[in-house]
Amino acid sequence: MDFLSSRAKLLTPYTAGEQPKEKKYIKLNTNENPYNPSPKVAEAISFAAQNLRLYPDADSSELCRAIAQVNNVQEECVFCGNGSDEVLSFVFYAFFGGSEPLLFPDITYSFYPVYSKFYDIAYETLPLNGDFEIDPSFYLRPASGVIFPNPNAPTSVYFSLEKICEIAEYHKNKVVVIDEAYIAFGGESAVSYIKKYPNLLIVRTFSKSHALAGMRVGYAIGQPHLIDALRRVKDSFNSYPVDCVAAAAARAAVLDTAYYSDITAQIIQSRDFFAQGLKEVGFRVLPSAANFVFISHAGIPAQALYAKLRENGILVRFFNKPRIDNFLRVTIGTREDMEYVLQILKNGRMV
Amino acid sequence: MDFLSSRAKLLTPYTAGEQPKEKKYIKLNTNENPYNPSPKVAEAISFAAQNLRLYPDADSSELCRAIAQVNNVQEECVFCGNGSDEVLSFVFYAFFGGSEPLLFPDITYSFYPVYSKFYDIAYETLPLNGDFEIDPSFYLRPASGVIFPNPNAPTSVYFSLEKICEIAEYHKNKVVVIDEAYIAFGGESAVSYIKKYPNLLIVRTFSKSHALAGMRVGYAIGQPHLIDALRRVKDSFNSYPVDCVAAAAARAAVLDTAYYSDITAQIIQSRDFFAQGLKEVGFRVLPSAANFVFISHAGIPAQALYAKLRENGILVRFFNKPRIDNFLRVTIGTREDMEYVLQILKNGRMV
Repeated sequence: MDFLSSRAKLLTPYTAGEQPKEKKYIKLNTNENPYNPSPKVAEAISFAAQNLRLYPDADSSELCRAIAQVNNVQEECVFCGNGSDEVLSFVFYAFFGGSEPLLFPDITYSFYPVYSKFYDIAYETLPLNGDFEIDPSFYLRPASGVIFPNPNAPTSVYFSLEKICEIAEYHKNKVVVIDEAYIAFGGESAVSYIKKYPNLLIVRTFSKSHALAGMRVGYAIGQPHLIDALRRVKDSFNSYPVDCVAAAAARAAVLDTAYYSDITAQIIQSRDFFAQGLKEVGFRVLPSAANFVFISHAGIPAQALYAKLRENGILVRFFNKPRIDNFLRVTIGTREDMEYVLQILKNGRMV
Repeated sequence: MDFLSSRAKLLTPYTAGEQPKEKKYIKLNTNENPYNPSPKVAEAISFAAQNLRLYPDADSSELCRAIAQVNNVQEECVFCGNGSDEVLSFVFYAFFGGSEPLLFPDITYSFYPVYSKFYDIAYETLPLNGDFEIDPSFYLRPASGVIFPNPNAPTSVYFSLEKICEIAEYHKNKVVVIDEAYIAFGGESAVSYIKKYPNLLIVRTFSKSHALAGMRVGYAIGQPHLIDALRRVKDSFNSYPVDCVAAAAARAAVLDTAYYSDITAQIIQSRDFFAQGLKEVGFRVLPSAANFVFISHAGIPAQALYAKLRENGILVRFFNKPRIDNFLRVTIGTREDMEYVLQILKNGRMV
């Protein structure tokens, strides 16, 4: 018997990176932070846990205020949700659709086509160039909106703000979304342009740079009319998507800028060390502005490398998709993690 | 400038009960539990808070297992989400829609029409009778599905399992959803019928009976083919909707059955005491199987009572809607809370 609605039958769900439950792996497959969150997070959680019987503030106002403060915008410019995945889902519902297609790169976060199908939004993917860069000229055409991560995932490549402005300028009447999940790791944020472009929306997450993947908090920054639209969608789906403990944890994290500058600098150092080591043994390493690298070896197929690393207790991400099926995405762990990966690659005579 | 998608323009968001930030109220307006959650919840939270950098288990397996155990079903029969509101939203997407209307009562949880509009699902509301009871015969007609809370909200009235079976039997090929948000407060759950009816789905929340409104956890129980459908929807919307801390908190709560039996018994006692007191001063009190009562006074308009109670620091819920605009929904707080409300009603010469 088949109880599914016709729309549910058409779904192609997203496949997240594996979260192994048993064997201990060096887990470099889902771009988590190798460091724990700020110690202030645990304090904030203990405090929030004392008052669980009441519903949380539906708009996570204190968290929005803290994010606004750190990003030098007004509180009315911030919307919080249950992970940036939920925020993105609301964004798709609120802004995209109609007769023109939504535009995003052919190689990008693979949840975008899933959301599009979920809401029956027409989309068109535009090819990255041979260096896996976004070509802004491709995006200057009629569309219901534009979205891409910056730096892009899984490529790690950063796209200049100048080019973002060009796209935002062209699509004056459509929303242009920059998914800045990885912006803390070297790129410059487009957030300073939300004043200039009322159609520009920035989406971020606490899962990567703020080491709170377990907590599920994401947010959007844009002019109040965009934020209000996201609230309308939220209030038609789930009034209280961010629980009081998660909101308190994220607030403590975003305010502890010194701690996060420090761990981010360590990750960037480890990334540069790891990239250098990889190049020395014949890897192509795309220029990374993220907490992961996207790598390929001329001599050994990526799938074989993936399997070998896995046998040695190292989980990385392999995407069996056209154009990138000879690449691996490797999250940057601690310096020790990355030394170990290099050692396995070299001593295991894999490269 | 208007950036909203055509579907977002048509939204009519849900209005939740007020969550006052400043003045101290006796808060009897959103059916929260007056007692704190089990002390085991805080322990579980402290433990979970030690490991936030990794993504949570996408399917909240340990929590599903605990819920399954307590409800005497298989783990594969349980789906968890970010509050029962999210679970319900996924239910609407997964199962309802098409040419026949979804059926639900005219007086019921006011999020149902909101979800229907969110996903463009045709629906028809069927009137409760003069005693605010569901008439099962109204539901024996072609439909894309049926949903109602049992006990119903905001009426508090319980609907017998026999009648649920009649509806489930008739709609063999459609999903019949029983929203058991308030089932712990006196009704008998339909969960034992999921074996007999592959189209029966039970939805519950930790917000009311388990005093975890701040944590946002809900769940569904049904046969695995229904649960799989909800997972497909989840994985097209947000892979990890339940954070690791919320999952741990809910797990600790559901397993501490002794603690919750105790506080639930206290709430039921306070409800019966309060209902009796109300009747003595001329209120009509619908027979309640919930942690709230739905009341009306022949002599004083509900809206005036609402305002007077508010002036006296007591928040209750007034719905300015046809048929129920002379009723108030009053959450059952502690015995002391309810004594105070009665005292205000009597000594304030309001009744």
